[in-house]
Order: sequence, then structure tokens, then C-alpha cells
Amino acid sequence: MRDHAPATTPTIHTELLDRLRSTSPLVQSITNTVVTNFTANALLALGAAPAMVDIPGEAGMFAGLAGGVLINLGTPLAENRAAAVEAAAAAGRAGTPWVLDPVAAGVLPIRTALAAELVAAGPTVIRGNASEILAAAGAGGGGRGVDSTAGPEAALDAARGLAVRTGGVVAVSGPTDLVTDGSTVVRVANGDRLLTRITGGGCALGAVMAAFLAVSEETTVFDATVTAVACYTIAAELAAEQAAGPGSFAVAFLDRLGDLTADQVRQRVVLA
Amino acid sequence: MRDHAPATTPTIHTELLDRLRSTSPLVQSITNTVVTNFTANALLALGAAPAMVDIPGEAGMFAGLAGGVLINLGTPLAENRAAAVEAAAAAGRAGTPWVLDPVAAGVLPIRTALAAELVAAGPTVIRGNASEILAAAGAGGGGRGVDSTAGPEAALDAARGLAVRTGGVVAVSGPTDLVTDGSTVVRVANGDRLLTRITGGGCALGAVMAAFLAVSEETTVFDATVTAVACYTIAAELAAEQAAGPGSFAVAFLDRLGDLTADQVRQRVVLA
Amino acid sequence: MRDHAPATTPTIHTELLDRLRSTSPLVQSITNTVVTNFTANALLALGAAPAMVDIPGEAGMFAGLAGGVLINLGTPLAENRAAAVEAAAAAGRAGTPWVLDPVAAGVLPIRTALAAELVAAGPTVIRGNASEILAAAGAGGGGRGVDSTAGPEAALDAARGLAVRTGGVVAVSGPTDLVTDGSTVVRVANGDRLLTRITGGGCALGAVMAAFLAVSEETTVFDATVTAVACYTIAAELAAEQAAGPGSFAVAFLDRLGDLTADQVRQRVVLA
Repeated sequence: MRDHAPATTPTIHTELLDRLRSTSPLVQSITNTVVTNFTANALLALGAAPAMVDIPGEAGMFAGLAGGVLINLGTPLAENRAAAVEAAAAAGRAGTPWVLDPVAAGVLPIRTALAAELVAAGPTVIRGNASEILAAAGAGGGGRGVDSTAGPEAALDAARGLAVRTGGVVAVSGPTDLVTDGSTVVRVANGDRLLTRITGGGCALGAVMAAFLAVSEETTVFDATVTAVACYTIAAELAAEQAAGPGSFAVAFLDRLGDLTADQVRQRVVLA
Repeated sequence: MRDHAPATTPTIHTELLDRLRSTSPLVQSITNTVVTNFTANALLALGAAPAMVDIPGEAGMFAGLAGGVLINLGTPLAENRAAAVEAAAAAGRAGTPWVLDPVAAGVLPIRTALAAELVAAGPTVIRGNASEILAAAGAGGGGRGVDSTAGPEAALDAARGLAVRTGGVVAVSGPTDLVTDGSTVVRVANGDRLLTRITGGGCALGAVMAAFLAVSEETTVFDATVTAVACYTIAAELAAEQAAGPGSFAVAFLDRLGDLTADQVRQRVVLA
Repeated sequence: MRDHAPATTPTIHTELLDRLRSTSPLVQSITNTVVTNFTANALLALGAAPAMVDIPGEAGMFAGLAGGVLINLGTPLAENRAAAVEAAAAAGRAGTPWVLDPVAAGVLPIRTALAAELVAAGPTVIRGNASEILAAAGAGGGGRGVDSTAGPEAALDAARGLAVRTGGVVAVSGPTDLVTDGSTVVRVANGDRLLTRITGGGCALGAVMAAFLAVSEETTVFDATVTAVACYTIAAELAAEQAAGPGSFAVAFLDRLGDLTADQVRQRVVLA
């Protein structure tokens, strides 16, 4: 029996997928220039309405209107950094759920400092690979930027501590994804290695989490986050079955995000 | 009989498609980071030569060399805003046709002010969804950013007034696209809903309009704009027939922009 | 017999392809917003680890960690320009190989000045179309930006002079690519016209060169560059065989970068 296995069987709330499609929540993304197109397309395919509002003077105001916000630190120009701080504060004031993706924190100084500031602002969810979560938790860096050199289990204690500190949820991406609210830990063992062979495979997940949070209503942040991870990684599995390489995988992945059904999710999800 | 139906049957100038391919006009795009790749690929597929010259000190100079210019306000960093103003002024001086896409004007303050300034500079064509055109016309905002909450017909009067004011053409995108020069109104009833499920479906159309304007010669701006809308939306229809979702639609759309024929356009166009 | 034919048959070092996949070198790309997604995906497909670290305060530090660096001047915001200068200096100090792609140098003033400054810093490889290489060599501009109006042979003398001046290698892209270290000249006659119908067809090659340089070890810069060109353009040939247009070509190209074999390269390479 696993050490940190949840006391009760975690529930996948597939009704969130249907609600996301019927209500099309606005998801603000302050993200990096590498993945902004893929992120917007993943949100659109899933049924959400992406809005890349990432300049100061607009980002804060929009965070009050949006259903969810992603702040990703991939290529943080000075204006994007100011927009991130502004949006985090406004999301906090408005009660808009927001996801922090501290890309390459722990390796590069400017985003490491910004990640610390944003962690202190209390993100609803923090998503990263093991190295990034270790860095966000102040538990030392390492890693090679977007490329984690450690597996998710190595970041489990840091993730739990970070969740307790922020009062939010922390998700560590890897071959098996790990989600914790500080006490409960769920592992989602879906996905496909091809997700690591396209850029944005992790970054777009942060935006998809924000979309699920935007329609979570009475569902807990923890369950909505686990559901987002399951839907996303199962769409990836379905896409991988049709792919001849990373190029066709990315295309099929958007198609499968577009027609993913609650039944597919229930049948394929592997939790631990 | 429709109120604003054109007095004469509008003409689709399919010879512009051939001329575009044989002369490969330079199309400068000052556009947002979400769609810049898709926009450049749409222009290349069609046969134009994209050039994303979007910084001050270069944008104005290049607007004098380009065949057409697109200014899209999607993610307007301070340098991009300065470049937009510089390019609009230079295009005006040089007689280069230019298209304004006032993304999310009316919702977000910085771009709303910039859109007003650029409208005053007299764009050759203004393209947007109904909410954006209403905002650009000063007729109140609304909308959810890139996501119009009103249909094109709701923006008809605003579009006509805006066209009269600028002396240009205004195009309102939607299930049926509406193009007006202030007196004549043409509706293009082609396209596919999948165009709204990929990012850049509207933004790239603005660039394609600039490409058609670049080769318009004796054709009026109005007819060249209608022709651009027809070619673009018909390529989308052809692509949708092959698509299994938004991912494969985007790929097929570029392929169909690449081999679209004048015959296909003439056979499929639905004008009103 | 060709004037500048190499004295000895040039060698394609296909072992670099295998080493690239087994070691997954970090490739830092300071590149333009149009192609950043495609560039990262090309690197990932090939087996490298892309890192788009492009702001001052981080770019220099990372250039010391990376296996190779690309500096591409496509859409140079002020921060990106500062990052480029910082990264070039740091790469020089650390001995990290770096590739300069002087996009549209000779046409646009800001990047032309920056290109001159970076050429003086001694890039390991300079890659561009004929117009860009002529401009980087100070041999007059012309061209239409990304779109060369001259063929590679017209830039041969400029390329040789530039290679002598920098002590590096210069690669001129075109229907037949030309690579020179100032004395030897090799022509690679692989590739497909579809590479010019997608954006990033040239830009991503610069990043792929940086990836091959990162694993070159005892192989010369010249041979590693020729090998990069051969692998890249042969993947394009294989992709073109399956493509129905530029959209499907880009997808297939990433797939073929993903499964390209040393045998395919040896069988198809056409050198002169």
C-alpha cells in the first residue's frame, strides 16, 4: 500500500468537461511566446475561450472578468512580469482561480525571484515539473530549465509543503502526475511520452487547469485539478494511438481534446 | 428583399488570387504573439510573402516598402504599439493599403485608446467581430475580448458609419461575414464553424485582406476585400470537409489555401 | 568541374544525429515570435532540449550552461536585442558554439546594426539567405527581408570573406545550400521547395545547427554544420513526399525529424 495514498477513492468529475463546453469560460493566459498558439488552440479545442491579455494596465482588469487565469513564466519580458503581478493581485481580490507555472524557476534568476513573489500571492494551483516545484518550494533548484532532471516523487515532500504554505493545490508533471493539497496525494498514471516531445505539452496543461477551475463551482480545487490532469493526459493517450511522430501527435491531440467524452475519461483513467 | 442588398451583383475578382501567387506581395504584419505563426503560414500558403516587422524604427520604414500592412492589436506591448502608430502613418504617406484589426477593443483600455487613434489615421479596411466593430465605431463595447457576443447584423449600422468616417471599408466577421463601404453592403455566407475553434481564424483573415489589397490595382478596395473574405472562407469550407477536429482543420486549411483555385471560389461563393 | 569544389569528399557525420538523440543537448534560442513554436518543436522532434531564454539578466547566464545557442534577429524587441548581445558575449567566454541568423539584415536598420555588432563578436556559424549573408558581410543589402532575391551562388564570395573574417563557418540557404569555412565550400543539394512555403523553414535550421554543434566534439564546425544541413533538408524531402500542401508538410516534417535515420541521410545526401 502506498504511503500517501488517499483515504478515499478520488473522484473524476467528468461533468466539468461537459460544463466547460456548454459555458465556454474565459481563460486569461499570460504565457510564453513559444506556446501561446498551442495553448490557445488547446483551450479552444476543449471548448474554453482563451484570452492572452498579458500587458500591464489590462491584465489586472481582465483577471477580474475571466473565469480563470494562467500565469506562466516561460519568456517573461518586463511588461509580462508586471502584468503577471497585476493579474495575480486582481485575481486574488476578485476570487478568480489562478494557476502558476514557474517555468525554469531555480535555474534562471529573474523568473526565480518572480516565482517567489507569485507563490507568496497564493496561487490556486501551482503546476510544474519536479525541478520547478522544488525551486518554487525553495527546496533548491537544479533541473535544466523546462527539462526536469528529477522524477515527480522526488518533489512530493516539497509539493506537500508548498500546498500547505499557499493553501492551494500543487501538481507535479511527469510520467505519472502527482496532485496534492498538502494532505491528500493523487497520482494520475495516464498520458504518453509524446507529450514531452512537443513544446507546450506541460504549459498548456496549466491553462487547461485554469479552464476546469473556472467551471468547478462546488467541486473542490483538488478534484477539479485532478480532473483536468486526467482529461488532458487521456486526450494525449488517444492522440498517441494515431500519431506517426511529434508533428502528427500535436494535431491529433487538439482533435482529441475537441471530441473527448466523459466515457473515455472514466474508462481510461488510472489513479493511485 | 434585404434592406441593404447591393444594387448590382457583387463581383468576386478571382484574378486577384492568381496575381497574388504570381507576384508574391510583401505583407507586413504587426500582430499578436498568439497567431503570428499561423498568420505567416496562411500568407505563405496563399502565395504572399509575410514580414513581421513590428518594432519602432523599422515598422514605419517597412510600411513604405510593403504591398500591404496588417495592424492587429491582440497582444500590444509598448514597442508594438509604437510600431503600429509608426506603420499606420507611413502607410498613409506611402499609399500602402493597411488593415486594422482592433482585437478586444471596447473591453481593454490600452488597446481601445490605440484603436481610436488608428481609426482616426484612416485604415483602408477595418476587420473585426461585431463587438470590436461596435467598439471601434465608438458605439459601446461589450463582448468578451476576441469572442463576440453579438452577431454581425447587430454591428451593421456601426460598420456603415465607421466606413463613411474613415473613407474605407469595414468587414464584420461572423457566421455570415458582412463587408461595407458605407453605402453598399455585401454578405459572404461561406466558411465553417471550425474557423472559430482555432486561434487566428479571424486574425489571419486580416493579413489575407492586406495581401489581396496589395495586388488589387484597378479593383476597388471593397471588391478586393470581398474577394479576400470569399477565398479565405471557402478554403475553410474545403478544409472542414477533411477535418477530424480543430487540429486537423488548421492543417488542412493551410493546405487548401495553398491549392485553392479560382474555379472553386466561383462555384462555392454565396453572396447576398 | 566546379571552381570551389572541396579538395576531398566532404563527410556527413551521421553519428552526430545519434549522439544528439542520446544526449539531448540544451539549445538556447533567442528567436523571433513567428517561429519560436516551430523552432522548439523541430528541436524536440530531433531529440534536443530547447530553451527559449531571451531576456537580459538570464540570457547570458544560460549561454554558459547551454550546449549551443541560436541568435535570430527576426522580431528584435529591445529586451531581445540586449539578451542577444549578452548571450553572444557569454557564449564566447564559455566556449559555447553559437549561430547567428541575421534575418532581414540589410533591409531594416535596427537589426542591421545589431547584426554587425554580433558578427564582430565572432559567431561559430552565420546562417542566412543570400541577401542576408551579403548584408552581414557588408556587401550591400537588397532582398525583401526574409525573402532573398538572389541565389546562394551570388553570395559565395561574401560568405567566404565573412567566414575568414569571423574565423567561423557561413551557410547560405537556398535551393542548393552552400556552406563554407572560407576555404572549402560544400553544396548540399537536398531539400524541397515546401520548406520555403512554411514560416521557420530557414529559422529552425539555425537552431538545428546549434544542436549539432552542441554534440560535435572532435568533429569540425564545418562538418557538423554540413551534417545539420543534410539531416534537416533530407527530413524535408521525406516529408514532402507525404504532404498535400504546406500545412501537412510542416506536420510531416516534424514527424520525419523525429524518426530520421543515419541510413536515410547517407542514402539521400547530395553533396557537391
